Amino acid sequence: MTLDAERMAQWQAAHRARVDAALQSVLSVPEEEKTLLSAMRYAAFGGKRLRALLVYAAAALTDGQDDVADAPAVAVELIHAYSLAHDDLPCMDDDDLRRGRLACHVRFGEAVALLAGDALQTQAFAVLAKSALSDPAHACYVLAQASGVLGMAGGQARDLETTARDIRGLEIMHQMKTGALIRASVALGASCGVALSPDENTALTRYADRIGLAFQVADDVLDVEGVSDALGKTAGKDAAQNKATYVSLLGLSEAKRLMNTLCEEARSALSLFGERARILKTLATQVVARSH
Amino acid sequence: MTLDAERMAQWQAAHRARVDAALQSVLSVPEEEKTLLSAMRYAAFGGKRLRALLVYAAAALTDGQDDVADAPAVAVELIHAYSLAHDDLPCMDDDDLRRGRLACHVRFGEAVALLAGDALQTQAFAVLAKSALSDPAHACYVLAQASGVLGMAGGQARDLETTARDIRGLEIMHQMKTGALIRASVALGASCGVALSPDENTALTRYADRIGLAFQVADDVLDVEGVSDALGKTAGKDAAQNKATYVSLLGLSEAKRLMNTLCEEARSALSLFGERARILKTLATQVVARSH
Repeated sequence: MTLDAERMAQWQAAHRARVDAALQSVLSVPEEEKTLLSAMRYAAFGGKRLRALLVYAAAALTDGQDDVADAPAVAVELIHAYSLAHDDLPCMDDDDLRRGRLACHVRFGEAVALLAGDALQTQAFAVLAKSALSDPAHACYVLAQASGVLGMAGGQARDLETTARDIRGLEIMHQMKTGALIRASVALGASCGVALSPDENTALTRYADRIGLAFQVADDVLDVEGVSDALGKTAGKDAAQNKATYVSLLGLSEAKRLMNTLCEEARSALSLFGERARILKTLATQVVARSH
Repeated sequence: MTLDAERMAQWQAAHRARVDAALQSVLSVPEEEKTLLSAMRYAAFGGKRLRALLVYAAAALTDGQDDVADAPAVAVELIHAYSLAHDDLPCMDDDDLRRGRLACHVRFGEAVALLAGDALQTQAFAVLAKSALSDPAHACYVLAQASGVLGMAGGQARDLETTARDIRGLEIMHQMKTGALIRASVALGASCGVALSPDENTALTRYADRIGLAFQVADDVLDVEGVSDALGKTAGKDAAQNKATYVSLLGLSEAKRLMNTLCEEARSALSLFGERARILKTLATQVVARSH
């Protein structure tokens, strides 16, 4: 490992530990509700924390402090965790494996997993509403837009509705289902510090948009290559369900090429920031590196 | 009908129409997401709007304007609707009937009903975050506390966990499961106008606390008396599931007496407001009148 790579690994480990500690504290009280809280903690831990890292990295770009970024980092991970707990339920994707462990409903039962997801979503808004951000109400609105009909939930509904779609339909669906929360992570992180110029905002939005898509293309590649370990969930499910994916529509090598192009576009969108965007650039590379 | 009763009926009809119109507008766009929005609208309509009426009535008590109260009125009804859509799912209470119609999952399928509930919750926070309330972030926090582990979701988890409990355990569970959102409705309504004195706040909180419980006792009475119509859901389920209820623990006549006592306590808590609390007092009476 180069010195730079080593520093980056340290930064990531430190910030993963940071958001985990913040999540632990948010999901520990009150002790009386231990069944529900246990399921919420179970669902909220074990991830790679990409969204939280994007919050901290975008905060750093705007000279925002980590202790201000903790709240949005926790909030986006809570929303992500709720979505996984619900997506894995039998009536939805019916997946027994998540993050390399039993899915929440297999471990705690469907009713508790459903409630845990509900309460994780609620907690995300509680944390943001109480945060030290300069405009916590606006932050709640940004998170809600990313999670609701126009974002994650709307994207999941589109995903359920049809398995046949063209590349444009696939892109819209993924930009809603996973892209919206990734964009919100970057936007909420950037709201922790000094306001960016319009040009800088445009560049950062483009970065978030590109890595959101790159992430999904990489997911499709992983699914096909059957790497359940890297995926942390059951591989090969999309093909089994005859779902349109980037790989099924473009072929494996073209999908990989698209993924790398998107990653490159994300990185070069940040060029006006120079060295300050170093961490965000590395995160873009990691998003696709999972499938290398 | 007396003139007063007639005026009250008009006020209620006007404010039910008001929150319905506001909900319709919130749940109509974007047209592209029509499957999810249809299920959300289906789940959000048909109720008695008790929570919204409490918001408007508490707003009126503090000289708050209806157009400021619209957002919290919509938000509490969205949270209530999401909880019903999820509670009725097969893995939870497994009820096919709600508000006198098919439950959302029977009409739209389980996956869409689950997502609709998720998105209704999200929308509640979006609406509050964008509201004209003086402190929208605080409003989001109040709603989140009422809905999450300490409130509705926590109460539902307690309800799932055990069917055997004493009267105190039953009260705690209901104060979380239904009481917390009723208290939040009153508190959010009161935040629409001029700040109350500490004494007035204490009185209003006591009112909300009492009607929250009265509502649940009345629900238990309705369930036993088998009045599915008034209940809008399948009656007799609690007894069939051998659940502890106010009726099973106290007997029918004692439960009715408790219900009336709670209603009286709610009304007299408001005495310091005089005539200004007329609407809130009438709502307390209606909460228990369903089962007369």
